[in-house]
Amino acid sequence: MRMIDIIEAKRDRKVLTNEQIQFAINGYTAGEIPDYQMSAFLMATYLNGMTSEETKCLTLAMAGSGDQIDLSAVQGVKVDKHSTGGVGDKTTLIVGPIVAACGVPVAKMSGRGLGHTGGTIDKLESIEGFQTMLSPRQFIEQVNRIGISVVGQSGNLAPADKKIYALRDVTATVDNLSLIASSIMSKKIAAGADAVLLDVKTGNGAFMKTTESACALAKEMIEIGKNAGRKVGALITNMNMPLGNAVGNSLEVIEATQTLQGNGPQALTYLCTELSTAMLQLAGKGSEEHCRELVQEALGSGRAFEKWKELVAAQGGNTDWLDDLSLFPKAAVIEPYYAQQDGYLSGYDTHGVGLAACLLGAGRETKDTQIDFSAGIVLEKHPGDAVRRGEAVAWLYTNSAERLEQAKRQLGQSVFLSEACPVPEPMIYEKLMP
Amino acid sequence: MRMIDIIEAKRDRKVLTNEQIQFAINGYTAGEIPDYQMSAFLMATYLNGMTSEETKCLTLAMAGSGDQIDLSAVQGVKVDKHSTGGVGDKTTLIVGPIVAACGVPVAKMSGRGLGHTGGTIDKLESIEGFQTMLSPRQFIEQVNRIGISVVGQSGNLAPADKKIYALRDVTATVDNLSLIASSIMSKKIAAGADAVLLDVKTGNGAFMKTTESACALAKEMIEIGKNAGRKVGALITNMNMPLGNAVGNSLEVIEATQTLQGNGPQALTYLCTELSTAMLQLAGKGSEEHCRELVQEALGSGRAFEKWKELVAAQGGNTDWLDDLSLFPKAAVIEPYYAQQDGYLSGYDTHGVGLAACLLGAGRETKDTQIDFSAGIVLEKHPGDAVRRGEAVAWLYTNSAERLEQAKRQLGQSVFLSEACPVPEPMIYEKLMP
Repeated sequence: MRMIDIIEAKRDRKVLTNEQIQFAINGYTAGEIPDYQMSAFLMATYLNGMTSEETKCLTLAMAGSGDQIDLSAVQGVKVDKHSTGGVGDKTTLIVGPIVAACGVPVAKMSGRGLGHTGGTIDKLESIEGFQTMLSPRQFIEQVNRIGISVVGQSGNLAPADKKIYALRDVTATVDNLSLIASSIMSKKIAAGADAVLLDVKTGNGAFMKTTESACALAKEMIEIGKNAGRKVGALITNMNMPLGNAVGNSLEVIEATQTLQGNGPQALTYLCTELSTAMLQLAGKGSEEHCRELVQEALGSGRAFEKWKELVAAQGGNTDWLDDLSLFPKAAVIEPYYAQQDGYLSGYDTHGVGLAACLLGAGRETKDTQIDFSAGIVLEKHPGDAVRRGEAVAWLYTNSAERLEQAKRQLGQSVFLSEACPVPEPMIYEKLMP
Repeated sequence: MRMIDIIEAKRDRKVLTNEQIQFAINGYTAGEIPDYQMSAFLMATYLNGMTSEETKCLTLAMAGSGDQIDLSAVQGVKVDKHSTGGVGDKTTLIVGPIVAACGVPVAKMSGRGLGHTGGTIDKLESIEGFQTMLSPRQFIEQVNRIGISVVGQSGNLAPADKKIYALRDVTATVDNLSLIASSIMSKKIAAGADAVLLDVKTGNGAFMKTTESACALAKEMIEIGKNAGRKVGALITNMNMPLGNAVGNSLEVIEATQTLQGNGPQALTYLCTELSTAMLQLAGKGSEEHCRELVQEALGSGRAFEKWKELVAAQGGNTDWLDDLSLFPKAAVIEPYYAQQDGYLSGYDTHGVGLAACLLGAGRETKDTQIDFSAGIVLEKHPGDAVRRGEAVAWLYTNSAERLEQAKRQLGQSVFLSEACPVPEPMIYEKLMP
């Protein structure tokens, strides 16, 4: 078999066999197929597309290109959740303990943040003592013992995806449904999930700008899951404003904790309830209605909050901070952003809010940036709120005033006021469940 | 400017500017743009095409990527000829002296052979003493003195084309009209031509298998020429059998000499007459009819043959060999290939005949193969000839009997006999003249 024949076949809109796709992925991962052949192949794929069957084969080839986590020692249906990324997205911190409290094991590998979106692992590390690097044995032992563990990605998961993603990034072949979907799903499959709930974000803070494109991506991933023998569901959710009020690592942990205590922002609580419900459905816990009752009971009874503390304790974190949120270190500088005129808050440029939080120290610009855990932004006003000139719309938190003015300007450009009260947008656009 | 934006534009079917194309070609030639970006760009170009204007810009950018031959010191309109390659194609050896004898300067750079097609430079070197490497000064001085010089490519002509061609070869992006046409024309323009006559071969021994595809390629190159301010004409000619009877270096020189003496095969004489006529037309020597008269006069009077001897003498070759063709060294082994049955010769697999000649030592399999100048094949029978079982169809010439049997088998597979007399095919399918 030769790579040039595989490129030629895709160029000529032929359907590739599983053997051809395996050959291309394994050869590229091993360094036997050069970048210039893979990039020609990726461009041909971008322009000519792939069938569902081809996309499944690509996904499984990438999932099998490195380590695969064996969760067979964990009892029950392992449901993973994947968010396509947004600003202020702390749902894993909330949904994980809820689902675990309902008796579904959560064996979760999460990533760090890069650019304007934060990472779950960074957020957890803002809790004093929290360890995110467990050995595979410790990880599984903890899931079996308390029902939940959240760790950083260890080992060599889907190295083909990693190498191909880096190449796509510099050859204008990122924005293709088959390639995006197989990239996400290959990592989820390598991480050992039986079922996956996708939280596909849409809006001005998301990769997918329209509900239609988000739905199309979700359907592509559901199709891959179906073909690969995994149960996959998706919620298409609103990222036209940051999720909840807090953006920034410890600020988000505080907000997640409040939500688990029943005191979270309404929209965030609603979304986490629905995500948890869908995960329980995928785990076979019964009807949507029944699953939602389980979730509400876990939240209302305090059992979800207790599970959260159990998780933090098991991984070495200081649970005193969760009982007394004032123990989280506060940023040295906390500055308001004032409205420049009267009106209604009509919306946020979510991506812009994320960038402003980055400038304050909450995110990474490069892989090596040191994160300021207490930096970030807390929104005071929400779309639809009436705002008076000089009133605080949001608060900026930072320990380094150096780029405060720049962050304030960035935030100012990301706040939209209007004369008329805007039409409220839904939090969840669509549910695609098996 | 960034290469990724240029790839993206072509991916999205946008029309590139001259600046963008220059940036891509210059950056790639200089090694600043990596192979993997160029190959993604080439695949996008392959699938989405280029406008005439883009193809012109690409051609001129590649022509300008290295040395450009300055023929301004040569008086008159410099007409180059380009053949897209075939088997037994010795037309340059015949057409060059004819055109020069008609007073049109021939400053010709030619290539060596690779694979199943021979190269003019190899053929000339089969004449004792013939020097193909002249300095640019010597080259131009000779053209001004005797009206003709044929040399090997010197200097660094169109290095962008060379580098891109090598990449296309391994990324399944060869077979695209804009890319083929710009590759050929960039070299012709860098070689200093005012006008170019294209001999676009079609048939089973040519790159273009159908008359339609050959016409399309010719039109693409004519369009480039028009946009780049060069006069370009094309003849679409038959390569469904080798050109003339001889395939192999000194065998072809002998046949070319016979043709210049008025004793060549009819089809070869006809094609060379028409190619020469078209070149004189492009040089502004008058109507087609008038130009054909000039050509026939040059051939009939012996002036074309005298010009051939003058060329060989000027470049150090032994002209005694041209006056007495028996002085060319003969192959040690000359074996017939006999017809296996009665019938009509219906045709040749031209590519297969070329491969058989290669096996006998006439061609290069790799760049470093040593050529056996007297090796090759001489065809005895032509399409339409009645053939009896046991009659010689062709003769195999070689100095190394090692692969004789293999060559004979290859030749046997390339000779087609039929019961009915085949319909004769035209030598020239179409003339596309400005």
